[in-house]
Amino acid sequence: MQIDSDRSLQLQAQLTSFMDSYVYPAEHVYHAFTDAAEDRWTIPPIMEELKDKARQAGLWNLWRPSTLGGRLTNREYAPLAEIMGRSLIGPEVFNCNAPDTGNMEVLLKYGTPEQQAEWLEPLFNGEIRSAFCMTEPDVASSDATNIQSSIVRDGDHYVINGRKWWSTGAPDPRCSIYIFMGKTDPSAARHQQQSMILIPANTEGVKMVRPMRVFGSDDAPHGHAEITFENVRVPASNLLLGEGRGFEIAQGRLGPGRIHHCMRLIGCAQRALEMMCQRSASRTAFGKPLSEQGSVREDIAKSWCEISQARLLTLEAAAAVDELGAKGARGLIGGIKIVAPMMAQTVIDRAIQIHGAMGVSQDTFLADAWAYARSIRLADGPDQVHMASLGKQLIGQYAND
Amino acid sequence: MQIDSDRSLQLQAQLTSFMDSYVYPAEHVYHAFTDAAEDRWTIPPIMEELKDKARQAGLWNLWRPSTLGGRLTNREYAPLAEIMGRSLIGPEVFNCNAPDTGNMEVLLKYGTPEQQAEWLEPLFNGEIRSAFCMTEPDVASSDATNIQSSIVRDGDHYVINGRKWWSTGAPDPRCSIYIFMGKTDPSAARHQQQSMILIPANTEGVKMVRPMRVFGSDDAPHGHAEITFENVRVPASNLLLGEGRGFEIAQGRLGPGRIHHCMRLIGCAQRALEMMCQRSASRTAFGKPLSEQGSVREDIAKSWCEISQARLLTLEAAAAVDELGAKGARGLIGGIKIVAPMMAQTVIDRAIQIHGAMGVSQDTFLADAWAYARSIRLADGPDQVHMASLGKQLIGQYAND
Amino acid sequence: MQIDSDRSLQLQAQLTSFMDSYVYPAEHVYHAFTDAAEDRWTIPPIMEELKDKARQAGLWNLWRPSTLGGRLTNREYAPLAEIMGRSLIGPEVFNCNAPDTGNMEVLLKYGTPEQQAEWLEPLFNGEIRSAFCMTEPDVASSDATNIQSSIVRDGDHYVINGRKWWSTGAPDPRCSIYIFMGKTDPSAARHQQQSMILIPANTEGVKMVRPMRVFGSDDAPHGHAEITFENVRVPASNLLLGEGRGFEIAQGRLGPGRIHHCMRLIGCAQRALEMMCQRSASRTAFGKPLSEQGSVREDIAKSWCEISQARLLTLEAAAAVDELGAKGARGLIGGIKIVAPMMAQTVIDRAIQIHGAMGVSQDTFLADAWAYARSIRLADGPDQVHMASLGKQLIGQYAND
Amino acid sequence: MQIDSDRSLQLQAQLTSFMDSYVYPAEHVYHAFTDAAEDRWTIPPIMEELKDKARQAGLWNLWRPSTLGGRLTNREYAPLAEIMGRSLIGPEVFNCNAPDTGNMEVLLKYGTPEQQAEWLEPLFNGEIRSAFCMTEPDVASSDATNIQSSIVRDGDHYVINGRKWWSTGAPDPRCSIYIFMGKTDPSAARHQQQSMILIPANTEGVKMVRPMRVFGSDDAPHGHAEITFENVRVPASNLLLGEGRGFEIAQGRLGPGRIHHCMRLIGCAQRALEMMCQRSASRTAFGKPLSEQGSVREDIAKSWCEISQARLLTLEAAAAVDELGAKGARGLIGGIKIVAPMMAQTVIDRAIQIHGAMGVSQDTFLADAWAYARSIRLADGPDQVHMASLGKQLIGQYAND
Repeated sequence: MQIDSDRSLQLQAQLTSFMDSYVYPAEHVYHAFTDAAEDRWTIPPIMEELKDKARQAGLWNLWRPSTLGGRLTNREYAPLAEIMGRSLIGPEVFNCNAPDTGNMEVLLKYGTPEQQAEWLEPLFNGEIRSAFCMTEPDVASSDATNIQSSIVRDGDHYVINGRKWWSTGAPDPRCSIYIFMGKTDPSAARHQQQSMILIPANTEGVKMVRPMRVFGSDDAPHGHAEITFENVRVPASNLLLGEGRGFEIAQGRLGPGRIHHCMRLIGCAQRALEMMCQRSASRTAFGKPLSEQGSVREDIAKSWCEISQARLLTLEAAAAVDELGAKGARGLIGGIKIVAPMMAQTVIDRAIQIHGAMGVSQDTFLADAWAYARSIRLADGPDQVHMASLGKQLIGQYAND
Repeated sequence: MQIDSDRSLQLQAQLTSFMDSYVYPAEHVYHAFTDAAEDRWTIPPIMEELKDKARQAGLWNLWRPSTLGGRLTNREYAPLAEIMGRSLIGPEVFNCNAPDTGNMEVLLKYGTPEQQAEWLEPLFNGEIRSAFCMTEPDVASSDATNIQSSIVRDGDHYVINGRKWWSTGAPDPRCSIYIFMGKTDPSAARHQQQSMILIPANTEGVKMVRPMRVFGSDDAPHGHAEITFENVRVPASNLLLGEGRGFEIAQGRLGPGRIHHCMRLIGCAQRALEMMCQRSASRTAFGKPLSEQGSVREDIAKSWCEISQARLLTLEAAAAVDELGAKGARGLIGGIKIVAPMMAQTVIDRAIQIHGAMGVSQDTFLADAWAYARSIRLADGPDQVHMASLGKQLIGQYAND
Repeated sequence: MQIDSDRSLQLQAQLTSFMDSYVYPAEHVYHAFTDAAEDRWTIPPIMEELKDKARQAGLWNLWRPSTLGGRLTNREYAPLAEIMGRSLIGPEVFNCNAPDTGNMEVLLKYGTPEQQAEWLEPLFNGEIRSAFCMTEPDVASSDATNIQSSIVRDGDHYVINGRKWWSTGAPDPRCSIYIFMGKTDPSAARHQQQSMILIPANTEGVKMVRPMRVFGSDDAPHGHAEITFENVRVPASNLLLGEGRGFEIAQGRLGPGRIHHCMRLIGCAQRALEMMCQRSASRTAFGKPLSEQGSVREDIAKSWCEISQARLLTLEAAAAVDELGAKGARGLIGGIKIVAPMMAQTVIDRAIQIHGAMGVSQDTFLADAWAYARSIRLADGPDQVHMASLGKQLIGQYAND
Repeated sequence: MQIDSDRSLQLQAQLTSFMDSYVYPAEHVYHAFTDAAEDRWTIPPIMEELKDKARQAGLWNLWRPSTLGGRLTNREYAPLAEIMGRSLIGPEVFNCNAPDTGNMEVLLKYGTPEQQAEWLEPLFNGEIRSAFCMTEPDVASSDATNIQSSIVRDGDHYVINGRKWWSTGAPDPRCSIYIFMGKTDPSAARHQQQSMILIPANTEGVKMVRPMRVFGSDDAPHGHAEITFENVRVPASNLLLGEGRGFEIAQGRLGPGRIHHCMRLIGCAQRALEMMCQRSASRTAFGKPLSEQGSVREDIAKSWCEISQARLLTLEAAAAVDELGAKGARGLIGGIKIVAPMMAQTVIDRAIQIHGAMGVSQDTFLADAWAYARSIRLADGPDQVHMASLGKQLIGQYAND
């Protein structure tokens, strides 16, 4: 009996109804537009229509935590993120998609009033979009000390050089601002070398090299970019928080971001489960509906158990962030980052198998959802890094009892 | 942030302290007594000492649900069952062990005042013990219609014939009463053929054939018996609830029983996790403490994630029983029965591996705990039966959305 | 010590050298051409260059079994298929790619001299390509009795109606001929309803509906098509073998085809293993090369064990086909179809993880190879069908001992 | 098509027939004797009868490799070890059981003529038995440098002190000789500190502390002992090979020993598979034979695939030892040590599940076979050690290609 607040329950009902009425039916329209577009990096008009509807319904910026001026706690928001996450185009409809939520959070927490006026407002309004330029091609970026990009002070400006990839959302034609991580002082202490800085997308020296593909899909029109920064010059006032504070900002950004990803993935897995049930009830092979075949029922039962458990752990992590802060909830956040993406990958793989060849194709959301789950096992630190860290923490906790 | 009531939290603290002070230190004494005993089926005196202490501390019969005159809800009791379950000799200390709790529950719910006076009172007091005679050697007993034992009315008596095995606790010298399941009318409707009846252990015609062993262990002095019933005659008033109500009683008995088993197994797994941490911190191989080896940390992290998730699902199931009754909570109860034993088996297997040869031996509780987990994957319905049933239920639920 | 013939060993060495010199270096050229092409369904010129080289080197049509006029047994060919399969563009270079090999085999075995002259010769020469139109969108095609397409005799012609998808290679501009499966007599016995017929790609009424995508990738310029056949009329002499023989032809086609797929996947997995080793030796995270991290070493060791075992089983299956025919080797062929794709999927997934974000991108062959492995778990019968069939066969074999 | 020699094939047929006629029927007699014996450490008379029969049939000492005066290669012997291993009492019947085979091999290779006359002869004849005292309770013995026992020269004698456990076969009343590993020079180079020495079981200062139990089973009358050695004095001529050669002897001993264990475990798994088939054909639940249930068929199919693959890899390893020696076959031996015990554990666990409660009991060989498989995952180096070592070797091999 998960304890949801009335406020959250009411929003869950509203969101579910909105998804049924508008978002699921729009998926096909959205993808058909992109597939037929001369330039795949064009925003399907239906997206702005959906956003308008969501704004009017008051289902806008729900991600914003009450500690930062929003309406909801992380615990209240988590089930909402699950519902939006059931469609890969869902979160943007409600202005709740990555990486914009994380970037808005950074600006909310660490931005100057000027930075907020210029970039946060239009992000809040869904007028522009943003990217987070952290991962680099040549190093293991899960270890922030490996970062090679440089941010060098030059009078009233900073000059930025570096190569980033997997900058999600950067190819989106509406993307106007990057939060960029680089080193201001490679000789400082391990976690004080890095800084973050705002780089407008149209600054000279910024070059979009290519879209990255994920298992063959370019995820247009949102996508993931490889970008080079060559002597990119921005005003010194674009620096966030201060020199050497980049690692600290990254840490603060990642906690809620991971919970949001996990909840969305739970939404994907839950939808895949429901699709398995529907498919197995409607499909017959060798004279018997799939729904009566033992291995199908086992796959469905196992999936439900895995989803239900991952959901409960993620809700627990969200509540812990509310209560203890991201740092105090570190173990639980690591736990869900290990659990939820792998769970979603497994459940969706089973759903693909039950859908036959259609499951790997463009005709369901399963292939894209699978690729999303698979990617998150690498994004924000690969599984192995989180397991090593959690294992170490637990040994420290129990070994001296 | 699992929401425990103050009452439950206080009892958790008391129990944890009692376990630390008395139960863990008694494990070795208990087993050493049995191993040295001339007759392994003798109760180690320390058990009655521990029971006295628990009675005095007010930690007695905590399993009894508030709906049946007890102090606690299922949700409040669940974390207590986990704590007691951390030792295989723990639950009996608090008069909370299987199968006595289930049998007391049956007598509470369905017993006549006379039956309760004669058998329930001494069970409540921990003076006698009981067994549940359901499983039969020759048929798949998870399907109750397969039961072959007969209960035949003969004037003021019933005459019982049949062969049962895996009657847990029956070899215990204090075991005085059996709840026996058989068919009163094999020609009735599928689920109205079975009845339950009380058979005192010392009735003529009852013959203890042998103790069953679980992976080589006889689990003395408690154990599991194979028993034959040959023209066993008991008064008609020993029948429970009425002819043809056996299946109904069995169903009512199994819900809370499964939750209790699952919580105990979560306790076993949690203790195994803590042992892994301690072992890995103290053991060195190839020049490096185990605690610094990547695969050890991963095993520990994975185990913690699996335990935490299973615990949350089990608490959810307990709360659902409180709120919806065992029938309404059917899906969740099936879910934890699938999840918790397999999880415990896996976690304990990892702990064994980290303990090396000691892990399979009599020198830790791991081998016995593993065997307990493995057995529960078969007891009260094998995993496959629960998965098939839950899968079918989910298909029915989602296929028509 | 696998026993390879001298002939096979010599060809293995030649192929390995050819792959190193020409094929691996061409992968990037090939994909860059397709990505830059105005029409993605254009053949990169380098492919014909590679084919010329292979022809001149005598590494051409090696798949053709000695029983059908070729040089090699299935057992001798199997390690060669593994080597070619290490590159996704490899098999075509040697005229050994699916579905052409299977289609050529069908024409060799069942084609009339006229059919062979018209279609087999240019296929042998690599001048045209072919597709196999079997799978249908609306039914579980792994159960051939579900086929809905019709082939109706009309005087000297047959008239074909139906919808097929996943016709691999059909979008290739060189694809000239389809082998099409449909029902000539839906009222005949279960396995005599189906027939196969040759349909030239340019016949009126054939309509390419769209390319199917596999996890977002269109696999251009080879691809997989959805095709409709509307009153397509071909001469009666295009029928293969005779009315009602379609199921029989399908069965005969699938045995060697499955072995070839499995060997190619073993090649993919082996290459992924080698890439894991190289990556882990060159990449550092948290101050330590990946190659010294316990979980990386375990992943590599497990992968090697799984690959080695799958390879041996596949070689055994190939030898069994040589000795006993496809029917006699049914159990082993089912076994490798269950084992090899799942093994490859697992090993490649580990390699992806070790490669970080690069692993899911277009920058290595891993993402495409993973999608290939995943697809084969569905193609030619999903895993579940093969497990059910093998399980049944084994029960029959051992239950009566 | 595994290539077995005629000699091996003939012995396979003979052994299979012998097992059917004599060994399987004796299992119950053997265990019933032990269970009823006043002293469980008494040899059931049927064992010597079986040994006589085997001697007369020429099925004796088949393990002895042709390179050491025997009849068969390792590759020829491997399938024979599988057949004997199908019964846990099988190997001893043919004088092919651990640890005697390994000990005989050590004496054959490294023993002086005097040592051979005194100990090897009666071992060859099956008149006495032996133990291998290597593992110690307080350290990770998989790392031989951890060994703490001491062997100190004192004039014409060596004086031995130490504590060993898991000395398999030591409790057997016929066990007369121990091969003991300890350190002669703790200050020598890492792998030259250890020596091996012969200690007659009845030497003063040798004390059998207790039998170790494996998941509750004492494995009587063979068993595993904890033994203390307190100032045990033996003639200097009892040393094997020379001071500081202990590690070298251990390495030489372990290769074939691991292959033998793996083949026996494959025999256990194969028998479990056959039992699953038979059980599923004869058992009905919920109105349907288990044999028609999808998940049962899948379990059986998967098990067959896993067994078949492990068998092929083990035969490959045996052939590699014949061709390249134990050192050259190191990778393959590590591979099967990783694969076969885990495979057997998994397959037998499935068989247990299909057998229901009977599966965990003393009524089938499954529980004991499972415990054997589980133990071997720890014996002769835990899985993790072999994976780390194989992974490192593979990285070295492929990273520099």
